[in-house]
Amino acid sequence: MDIIDIKAYMQLVGYKARAASHLMAKAETIIKNNALISMATAIKRDEYKLLTANAVDLENAKIKGLDSVFIDRLTLTSRDVANMAEGLLQIAALIDPVGEISGLNYRPSGIQIGRMRVPLGVIGIIYEARPNVTADAAGLCLKAGNAAILRGGSEAIHSNQAIAACVEEGLRIAGLPDTAVQILRTTDRAAVNELITMKEFVDVIVPRGGKELIARLSNEACIPIIKHLHGICHVYIDDGANVDKAIRIADNAKTQRYGACNAMETLLVHEKIARIVLPSLCAIYANKGVELRGDKASRVIIPSMKKATEEDWHTEYLAPILSVRVVTSLDQAIEHITTYGSQHTDSIITENYAHARQFLREVDSSSVMVNASTRFADGFEYGLGAEIGISTDKIHARGPVGLEGLTNQKFIVLGDGQIRQ
Amino acid sequence: MDIIDIKAYMQLVGYKARAASHLMAKAETIIKNNALISMATAIKRDEYKLLTANAVDLENAKIKGLDSVFIDRLTLTSRDVANMAEGLLQIAALIDPVGEISGLNYRPSGIQIGRMRVPLGVIGIIYEARPNVTADAAGLCLKAGNAAILRGGSEAIHSNQAIAACVEEGLRIAGLPDTAVQILRTTDRAAVNELITMKEFVDVIVPRGGKELIARLSNEACIPIIKHLHGICHVYIDDGANVDKAIRIADNAKTQRYGACNAMETLLVHEKIARIVLPSLCAIYANKGVELRGDKASRVIIPSMKKATEEDWHTEYLAPILSVRVVTSLDQAIEHITTYGSQHTDSIITENYAHARQFLREVDSSSVMVNASTRFADGFEYGLGAEIGISTDKIHARGPVGLEGLTNQKFIVLGDGQIRQ
Repeated sequence: MDIIDIKAYMQLVGYKARAASHLMAKAETIIKNNALISMATAIKRDEYKLLTANAVDLENAKIKGLDSVFIDRLTLTSRDVANMAEGLLQIAALIDPVGEISGLNYRPSGIQIGRMRVPLGVIGIIYEARPNVTADAAGLCLKAGNAAILRGGSEAIHSNQAIAACVEEGLRIAGLPDTAVQILRTTDRAAVNELITMKEFVDVIVPRGGKELIARLSNEACIPIIKHLHGICHVYIDDGANVDKAIRIADNAKTQRYGACNAMETLLVHEKIARIVLPSLCAIYANKGVELRGDKASRVIIPSMKKATEEDWHTEYLAPILSVRVVTSLDQAIEHITTYGSQHTDSIITENYAHARQFLREVDSSSVMVNASTRFADGFEYGLGAEIGISTDKIHARGPVGLEGLTNQKFIVLGDGQIRQ
Repeated sequence: MDIIDIKAYMQLVGYKARAASHLMAKAETIIKNNALISMATAIKRDEYKLLTANAVDLENAKIKGLDSVFIDRLTLTSRDVANMAEGLLQIAALIDPVGEISGLNYRPSGIQIGRMRVPLGVIGIIYEARPNVTADAAGLCLKAGNAAILRGGSEAIHSNQAIAACVEEGLRIAGLPDTAVQILRTTDRAAVNELITMKEFVDVIVPRGGKELIARLSNEACIPIIKHLHGICHVYIDDGANVDKAIRIADNAKTQRYGACNAMETLLVHEKIARIVLPSLCAIYANKGVELRGDKASRVIIPSMKKATEEDWHTEYLAPILSVRVVTSLDQAIEHITTYGSQHTDSIITENYAHARQFLREVDSSSVMVNASTRFADGFEYGLGAEIGISTDKIHARGPVGLEGLTNQKFIVLGDGQIRQ
């Protein structure tokens, strides 16, 4: 679809989203759940349509010569369609966060003060060519009482439009405005520039995609962004570690899924335990084809390691590569994480109470763990029900962002005629 | 003091603040409290120095021909100095928010998930010529485990430097880095531009001052801002209101302090109760010299009112002026607040359960009240201990921002060797 005046088009989208957000904020729980269930039904029913639309996108992507990783992400299978529908049903089953009242206490003045959970308003989601994000993001925003503007990768436009039709149908069946979730009908880049600067219509931007996309958006946006840029996650094997746990976790954190943002990229080992733990651990890595890049002290123990450069400590490999450093103290490990980490997820392996306590307090990451794999940093694993992303920001949500991160709390005051003295 | 290379100076300030923030994040509660108590002691001891420095600022302000409102804000009295010291002692007495763990629950995987409250990092405070903000803001940031960079109005530079000396002395006595609170030694505007764009060194900006300052900063900053722009607060007298309570609250909300951001600026009255409530209420206002500007329906009841224009509904008077509108329903009142309000503080006066419930849910303001004066929207009144400002933003803190708003929560995971399947 060709849209000539992108600015005017986006302003209209924004205006409609803002109007819809007021209706969504007061929508009853059962109505929102009905919409989610109807969307799931439509998606299951339209499986053939969705796969056909996806085939057009895949054909175009092949003509453009896009690589196999890209094609992989773009591809929808019958199972993906079923998972999308299942995801929406799971969101319907979650407790509605909107309107939850907490901490209602009396003050000496006689008024009662508490907080009520409220939607954020209008959420802009910018993502790459993964069509399943469309249903997921729409569902989460809706359940949290927000309106959403979705802008998917241009290569997935046919798939996204087909999913959009199901989403809109669900909204209409439930009696909600079908403008509560708008999927942009243009793939013009100028539309993104409008989206991230329309302060009057958009309250927060959630980018999902590679770090280049996110870095660019966070430089250019003047609307708050919920994001993480990198996942440079560490496991620190303390001198107080249980060796079996250390090996099991360090193996899992690196090798369970290389491409995940919560996979370990750097292993820190205390010098007192390095000679015990590294040989067995490195044998496991070698077996799995993980390339090791170590500092001087670790290469003394495992001479087959390549040499790690300063660059390595800063690198999110997302691949079977691991940098390894031997440290002389817990303080040095924390300092390394503070210097090189990305405030995503870091774990200490230790049986030492004081060390665990210090690590939990002093490591300033969105998830800090003791004796657990960094791979647990995930909305489902944390019991949030689903996640729209992971935030490493300092304000608002930190860590996996689920329904709660798509809401905020306002103050409520209940009185009986009180006035200020 | 003349600083030639503002950019280099600000980079150094930022670098020091970031370094100090790491030490502040792990500072023990008693150390932080000691610093606050020592600051209070120094301020009380140095009363004469502070008043002398303030006299220089006042002299300069008079030479510049600044108006009496300005001079008033700039002036420090013995009582102000005592209040500053008392404020710091009160902050010392507050519970330390840092490290608080909440919601620690087991997951089916065997890991325990919870949240730990953590400092934000480095906070930039930009304020106008009110020297007492210096001690206040420094104390709150410190107690919440943050480093702070303070930039006060140029007209208060001597007063601020004198207070800064006391703050630094307190930090040193407690063994904390004296760079944890840095008060800029330049009044060059370019320093502000650096402060609001040094993403690598500053995590959040809190502006305190007039709306022109805040509007300018929020347009230019690329660091998140905790702010409110306007306080266009409404009281809505519902048809289910108790007339005595309605009159008492509407009087208090407008007249208790005209210049406060939580003072009522527009009164909405249901048509069924307008003839009962408006005559007595308007007599009170007339008596206190409040100018009334009404819509057509309210001017039928009180013909002496001036005519309200569209402009009036958008205006934060901060003065003895009130706009009045008669509405035909609760829905119309909420719609008015949605259209013209500033999401600060709005109150309904009603004895009707369903109306109270609907108003609480549907009014999207940072404080929403039932049968209480809007003037209660304040950190002290809410029991937050102190406030650094009021936020009407959509993300992070909403409403009065105390210690909690200067912190965030990270996830913590406690395991016993668990790995992701």
